[in-house]
Amino acid sequence: MTDRTNTTAPSPMRARVGRFLDRTAVQNTVLGVILFNAIVLGLETSDAVMAEAGPLIVALDTACLTIFVIEIGLKLYARGLDFFRRGWNIFDFVIVGISLVPAAQGLTVLRALRILRLLRVVSVAPSLRRVVEGLVNALPGMGSVFVLMGMIFYIGAVMATKLFGSAFPDWFGTLGRSGYTLFQIMTLESWSMGIVRPVMEVYPYAWLFFVTFIMVTTFAVVNLLVGLIVNSMQDAHHEETNEATGTYRDEVLARLAAIEERLSERERGGK
Amino acid sequence: MTDRTNTTAPSPMRARVGRFLDRTAVQNTVLGVILFNAIVLGLETSDAVMAEAGPLIVALDTACLTIFVIEIGLKLYARGLDFFRRGWNIFDFVIVGISLVPAAQGLTVLRALRILRLLRVVSVAPSLRRVVEGLVNALPGMGSVFVLMGMIFYIGAVMATKLFGSAFPDWFGTLGRSGYTLFQIMTLESWSMGIVRPVMEVYPYAWLFFVTFIMVTTFAVVNLLVGLIVNSMQDAHHEETNEATGTYRDEVLARLAAIEERLSERERGGK
Amino acid sequence: MTDRTNTTAPSPMRARVGRFLDRTAVQNTVLGVILFNAIVLGLETSDAVMAEAGPLIVALDTACLTIFVIEIGLKLYARGLDFFRRGWNIFDFVIVGISLVPAAQGLTVLRALRILRLLRVVSVAPSLRRVVEGLVNALPGMGSVFVLMGMIFYIGAVMATKLFGSAFPDWFGTLGRSGYTLFQIMTLESWSMGIVRPVMEVYPYAWLFFVTFIMVTTFAVVNLLVGLIVNSMQDAHHEETNEATGTYRDEVLARLAAIEERLSERERGGK
Amino acid sequence: MTDRTNTTAPSPMRARVGRFLDRTAVQNTVLGVILFNAIVLGLETSDAVMAEAGPLIVALDTACLTIFVIEIGLKLYARGLDFFRRGWNIFDFVIVGISLVPAAQGLTVLRALRILRLLRVVSVAPSLRRVVEGLVNALPGMGSVFVLMGMIFYIGAVMATKLFGSAFPDWFGTLGRSGYTLFQIMTLESWSMGIVRPVMEVYPYAWLFFVTFIMVTTFAVVNLLVGLIVNSMQDAHHEETNEATGTYRDEVLARLAAIEERLSERERGGK
Repeated sequence: MTDRTNTTAPSPMRARVGRFLDRTAVQNTVLGVILFNAIVLGLETSDAVMAEAGPLIVALDTACLTIFVIEIGLKLYARGLDFFRRGWNIFDFVIVGISLVPAAQGLTVLRALRILRLLRVVSVAPSLRRVVEGLVNALPGMGSVFVLMGMIFYIGAVMATKLFGSAFPDWFGTLGRSGYTLFQIMTLESWSMGIVRPVMEVYPYAWLFFVTFIMVTTFAVVNLLVGLIVNSMQDAHHEETNEATGTYRDEVLARLAAIEERLSERERGGK
Repeated sequence: MTDRTNTTAPSPMRARVGRFLDRTAVQNTVLGVILFNAIVLGLETSDAVMAEAGPLIVALDTACLTIFVIEIGLKLYARGLDFFRRGWNIFDFVIVGISLVPAAQGLTVLRALRILRLLRVVSVAPSLRRVVEGLVNALPGMGSVFVLMGMIFYIGAVMATKLFGSAFPDWFGTLGRSGYTLFQIMTLESWSMGIVRPVMEVYPYAWLFFVTFIMVTTFAVVNLLVGLIVNSMQDAHHEETNEATGTYRDEVLARLAAIEERLSERERGGK
Repeated sequence: MTDRTNTTAPSPMRARVGRFLDRTAVQNTVLGVILFNAIVLGLETSDAVMAEAGPLIVALDTACLTIFVIEIGLKLYARGLDFFRRGWNIFDFVIVGISLVPAAQGLTVLRALRILRLLRVVSVAPSLRRVVEGLVNALPGMGSVFVLMGMIFYIGAVMATKLFGSAFPDWFGTLGRSGYTLFQIMTLESWSMGIVRPVMEVYPYAWLFFVTFIMVTTFAVVNLLVGLIVNSMQDAHHEETNEATGTYRDEVLARLAAIEERLSERERGGK
Repeated sequence: MTDRTNTTAPSPMRARVGRFLDRTAVQNTVLGVILFNAIVLGLETSDAVMAEAGPLIVALDTACLTIFVIEIGLKLYARGLDFFRRGWNIFDFVIVGISLVPAAQGLTVLRALRILRLLRVVSVAPSLRRVVEGLVNALPGMGSVFVLMGMIFYIGAVMATKLFGSAFPDWFGTLGRSGYTLFQIMTLESWSMGIVRPVMEVYPYAWLFFVTFIMVTTFAVVNLLVGLIVNSMQDAHHEETNEATGTYRDEVLARLAAIEERLSERERGGK
């Protein structure tokens, strides 16, 4: 996570740029530009605003983007390839990079992705960064449950496609459609009135498959949740109690050792 | 939270009014008036009751309001500006104040807000006050997650408006509509059958956006929940264990120190 | 919870009946009759079974009911008025009593309530009894939150009736209807597509009221849940750790006392 | 859970086959075949792929099945009847066995069940096996709550069938239909707009039954969840703290005992 490692004496110029970027004023300016850019992109969605001040909005967006490109360019210059050793830098690089892809050719999706730049706030504000790192760190511990969920969905999708695909092509025609429908069913949205009751009119025993699927996925989700709670509880518990308990225990043991020491000293003295 | 601070010797009259307001009988009377007023306002919703005894209902409501105004007036007189140092007093002041705004000019919203006076029960009953204070105190610790949720909603609303706004103006026409629709999707209400399946008929890859949105917001909500549980657990844990453990530990250390003391005393004595 | 208190020497006959009722064989027979009765009442719902063997089913049900009445009669005889000191006995008494109300006069509701007799299993099987007692004991600790929820619902119902009652009489016409609709909204069922979007077509700012209501009630429910988890966690924690920790601590303090005792003994001896 | 117990000296051939099956390379090959088979069965759902390469897909599936049959045959030979002492082996046996039932006679259900073979991954990969064993081990502790839920559903189904069966045969016509509808209501899917509001048009007090049912089942589910969290918390707590605490406590007590020992030794020596 550290970004200044063994880069054998950077040139004074690069060091000076690095110090400039680390200044609080510069960081706050970048944060301000990110927030301002988010507002500009928000205004861009309003037809009234665009009719009134379209060119201005576009110009302001371009200005913000230019500042981001310069900032990241300076960072790259100051840190060199070490820049890419830090996850958040790659995150910034990709998010700004997306905006540079020529999006004028009708790719509204790429234009829409520009608002993701607001996520740069996370990489700039330490308190948010910690929350996101906490969320992301919780994921690996849940890895096995995610693999299980993936398997349950794949099995469910294959079975649903085979069983109901011919009669309900819109919902279960392909693996992808079945997967989406099963996701909807897992969220319990219209699962019965919308999907299962119509299916049961053709296959009366369809409820067996769907009720089982709901119970299995709900149970897995509940276990994910329980696992998350227990894990964060233990982490929190550790940090806190172990400190106080540790110093207390060390003191008790040290004092006991001192008493023993004294006793043996006297024994030696008594001999 | 205390409301009698350094107000250099209040006049005996003000002190007597203050003591009068603090009497249990007065407090219970106010509580009774609040509950009675809530019933009166409930009866006001019934057309049958209003046709039968409309003027009486209105008169009773006015009477209750008068009592509240007098009570708060007396409190203001007794406490002076210290009155506003306590959050609950401001709460009472605003809630009663709303009712005094002339609402006869067709502002049914203001008339509807009068029932909020029932919330004064919370400021009067200590057990409810503690629950609400507990809820409110839990909020700041969750601040970062709320900011993240706000960002996710803003980003989601901008993207949805850009991507689907032209084809589905009712759901995604403006930032506000997109935000409301995304809130609905976050609560999983009719997200698929009601919103996403129709959208997918125009934009087949729309599920990518919505499924991601559901997963991200669900994950954030789950983390909020986990955080809340862990926090209250630790608070509860602290209060309880640390007391017993603390006295035990203090005793052990004190006794160990006493033993050491005695041993060294004897050593000195033995010399 | 005990049912044999100070009833100054019951007659030998009553004592013998009491011992007879406490026998495992009798208890298991009653359990068997309860389960058999539940199956009989289940079969009664089938038109085919009733057409085939209607009189038999009714006769079997009457037989089961007779056994229950005799059992409770014997219990009443054996325990006297002490019978009513135990909550579960009153529970049994009411449930069996409901079935004795003449239900032939078209009161299908009373006939339907007969299946509640199956709940007697809970009062007979100790493991289920403990679970239910656990659930019920968790309720009082949550009392304040329930009162708050009740207030939120009452306030919400009064406001919704005043604001939307005239335009949507089916959903918000009376306090009762508003309460039911708000309960539906709290469970997030069709709240947006079914209720709020239609309302917003008449009152565009209705979302303010409903989104606030959803957030407040969800937050209260989450806090109820968190409270429940923390409470049961602490109970479980207590029972378990305190035992082991208690004996350990007692031993440490006893040993420290013994060492001190010896030291002072020697000091006295040393004198 | 161990599968090589007292089988008085297996023949060298059986032992060699057993060692062959335990090799990492063989295990990984089996894992690879399972995953490959899952892909093949996934491709089978695509009409385009089947039109192009149907016979190949079927042949590959048969090849995978053959490998599974040989593997399980070898295991059976190597372990003998001990094979069935391990739950996961029975699981594998049943899953592969399902595929051998002649499914060509139009039993699409049996063909669809073949994808369950993917679940063999769980029995082969230790990390997944541990998660599933964790989930399954959590079930018995929840037994009483499941029995209660079953009773609530049975009672609810009997009552709903009696009360609403005649007017709404599709939803409450038989015990089975009522059970399914109540499961839907428990998941809160369209419970109000879809089911209860229409029912209330015929039976205006139906909400009493359904709102009670929702509250009772939700409360039971919440308690299941709370129980699960508390249980896994305690397990995790145990494993972790007790180890460290145990060794610390043992050391303190041992040292205190040693000090006492020394003191009494000296007393004896002092005599």
